[in-house]
Amino acid sequence: MHAVILSIGDELVLGQTVDTNSAFLSAELATLGIGTLYHQTVADDQLAIATAIRQASSSAQLVLISGGLGPTDDDLTRQALAEAMGVDLVRDEASIEAIKAMFDRIGRPMSKRNEIQAMHPRSSQMISNDCGTAPGICAELNGAVIYVAPGVPHELFAMFEKSILPQLQQYKASRHVILTAKVNTFGLGESHVAQKLEGLTDRDRNPLVGTTVSEGIVAVRVRSEFADRATTQQQLDRTIEQVQQRLGAAVFGREDETIQQSLVEMLRQRGMKVATAESCTGGLLGEMITQVSGSSDVYIGGWVTYSNEMKEALGVAAALIERHGVVSQPVVESMASCAALRCGADAALAITGVAGPQGGSVDKPVGTVWVGLAYRNAGEQAEYKTESLLLKLTGNRRAIRDRAAKSAVQMLRLRLRGEPNRRIVIRQAHV
Amino acid sequence: MHAVILSIGDELVLGQTVDTNSAFLSAELATLGIGTLYHQTVADDQLAIATAIRQASSSAQLVLISGGLGPTDDDLTRQALAEAMGVDLVRDEASIEAIKAMFDRIGRPMSKRNEIQAMHPRSSQMISNDCGTAPGICAELNGAVIYVAPGVPHELFAMFEKSILPQLQQYKASRHVILTAKVNTFGLGESHVAQKLEGLTDRDRNPLVGTTVSEGIVAVRVRSEFADRATTQQQLDRTIEQVQQRLGAAVFGREDETIQQSLVEMLRQRGMKVATAESCTGGLLGEMITQVSGSSDVYIGGWVTYSNEMKEALGVAAALIERHGVVSQPVVESMASCAALRCGADAALAITGVAGPQGGSVDKPVGTVWVGLAYRNAGEQAEYKTESLLLKLTGNRRAIRDRAAKSAVQMLRLRLRGEPNRRIVIRQAHV
Repeated sequence: MHAVILSIGDELVLGQTVDTNSAFLSAELATLGIGTLYHQTVADDQLAIATAIRQASSSAQLVLISGGLGPTDDDLTRQALAEAMGVDLVRDEASIEAIKAMFDRIGRPMSKRNEIQAMHPRSSQMISNDCGTAPGICAELNGAVIYVAPGVPHELFAMFEKSILPQLQQYKASRHVILTAKVNTFGLGESHVAQKLEGLTDRDRNPLVGTTVSEGIVAVRVRSEFADRATTQQQLDRTIEQVQQRLGAAVFGREDETIQQSLVEMLRQRGMKVATAESCTGGLLGEMITQVSGSSDVYIGGWVTYSNEMKEALGVAAALIERHGVVSQPVVESMASCAALRCGADAALAITGVAGPQGGSVDKPVGTVWVGLAYRNAGEQAEYKTESLLLKLTGNRRAIRDRAAKSAVQMLRLRLRGEPNRRIVIRQAHV
Repeated sequence: MHAVILSIGDELVLGQTVDTNSAFLSAELATLGIGTLYHQTVADDQLAIATAIRQASSSAQLVLISGGLGPTDDDLTRQALAEAMGVDLVRDEASIEAIKAMFDRIGRPMSKRNEIQAMHPRSSQMISNDCGTAPGICAELNGAVIYVAPGVPHELFAMFEKSILPQLQQYKASRHVILTAKVNTFGLGESHVAQKLEGLTDRDRNPLVGTTVSEGIVAVRVRSEFADRATTQQQLDRTIEQVQQRLGAAVFGREDETIQQSLVEMLRQRGMKVATAESCTGGLLGEMITQVSGSSDVYIGGWVTYSNEMKEALGVAAALIERHGVVSQPVVESMASCAALRCGADAALAITGVAGPQGGSVDKPVGTVWVGLAYRNAGEQAEYKTESLLLKLTGNRRAIRDRAAKSAVQMLRLRLRGEPNRRIVIRQAHV
């Protein structure tokens, strides 16, 4: 089975927005063994969309379309699909009710405009949307199955995973079983990871091992393909084990697990509570930790000590700042100790640095970041021990702040594992 | 003149890489007044590429192709172009010399493989490449002009700017000029925005007005197309003005400006300093504000009062929390006042809510968020006034936290503008 992927929108054809939906859909189809013939991006023009749909349905057995299902006049995908199919649009009462219920939940009347979103080509089916008002559509044309989903990426992703993917499972190539896994690492550059995986990453190896890097996280992807499920799984597990052995403490999780989820889980197991004190990251570290639902079990809270007066209010001595500068080892360790002491946390993480693009100097160029940790064993009344780490990060402001916060998370993870910190924490935003 | 843009590569069709070249090329063409009919992404398959080239050259007067010019077996664009043109490949001696010189510069011998890169379809011309080994190709088919450039983005960008763009200028003068603009809004749902823009969004209007939504930000895109630059600009400006008038205070910026950039600029103009106190957003609001380089001029810092003990340490009375619950108007206003008082800020924003997925109740379901503001005029020593807003957000944890933080930013923006807050702040994460 082959697929064609269409993405609809003036903003795409005009180059104002980069189309990420098509790549997402292709990658998902690939896991089912369904190849993609081509992607096509079409403007909000009913005739052009209808033509593209006709052509796609003649070339492939599966057509995935994203975009053009909104309530406004420039959303024309449903009309174009009906045109291509040579049918009229009919109203789906269940969808009207669902859209009304959605508006009820948020305490607003449904706009007349949204009624169009309950219309679909005669003989097609609606696909419910849990994240927005636009239901999707499933239809047939020229023997091809056509799915239309909203263009808003997170609505598309959710609808694909929940409603479209399960229906596509039936087309999955039956010959081989393909299983994939992802091992997530932080603290080693991609080329360093590749070096440690030497031999495992040969292109003709099965299971196949490759790496991808995103936001400082180097993911090792393993793809196992054998005749039967048992062998495929066994071989997958064996390769994963080899990968984990070679990469050691840099590994923090599998599949979609984030480094902060791993930290929250480790703290929970130990019954420990943590606090934060942030300068250049401005709250990002706290935000990251609290992305984890249930993080209130382990996270007390923190201070965003963006200005010197806030650092002093936290308890950092003005003289310390004056003598060493705000971006310094004594200041970051003092920030961590003060934060821990103030709320009685078992551990506190602190960050101070130059995120840029302004504020760099010869001594402390943009990307210079100190990360500090104060800690004691859970429930202990002893004094806090402190440690700190100097990062020299590259990249833009966003990248520097992101890697700084992740490095702080990793620093505490390694401490909890009893690993020395200098060995592993990332020193570059890009490598 | 209209264009079709083709991008070639298995990694694109497989979804391993997101195609950014097509958006780049479309945006560049738009500035010349050349509209793009569609983008198509094709696999490394000679027949498929040749078919796509034939079709594109029949539909448009200009075809831009990126990718498939490398030295390896899966680079087949030049062969496919020759096939589509019905000619053979010939060798270009000047290009061979240029490729050899390129290898000399980096001190490596030229591989035999690279010779293919000096081949081009008979009757076509080579385009020199200053950044890599693959020269581009310029050809004609079905009356259309075809340009082929390397797929590596920085090589494509360089070749386009240096060699292709100057040649395209000739098509520009006598034709239409297209100018686009984006007006960003927050606080109104997309259908509400569409309602307010009624008439302006007609599909046959010029300038054309459309909306797109991303992360709660509804962007109004305007596309103006007239014979001369002056009229195009004038009409664009006039439509933008109409859009701004209809959407009023919901408009916060143009093009890539974020809502927090707008707030930071407003505070800077007024010489005001702000602080934050966050519960369910865990630091996200501080992080957002400090995304803006130079935000230290207006942002003092904040408290992440994730636990009740941190709220009490900030100064919120335990009795208040006990009587009204942590997610309540008295608590959020107390958080804001305490934060402002503690650091002497002119304004402080506070957020407390149920971000989910756990923690909801019948009274306060997931998505219930209170946003509070304490403020006084810059430099004033008077008591703080407080106001607050109840949000009923939908979506997942990430969306709820994002909209809560943006609503807080918007709340202060509206206060600084002297607009009533209840009228405008978003109550939905999606819609």
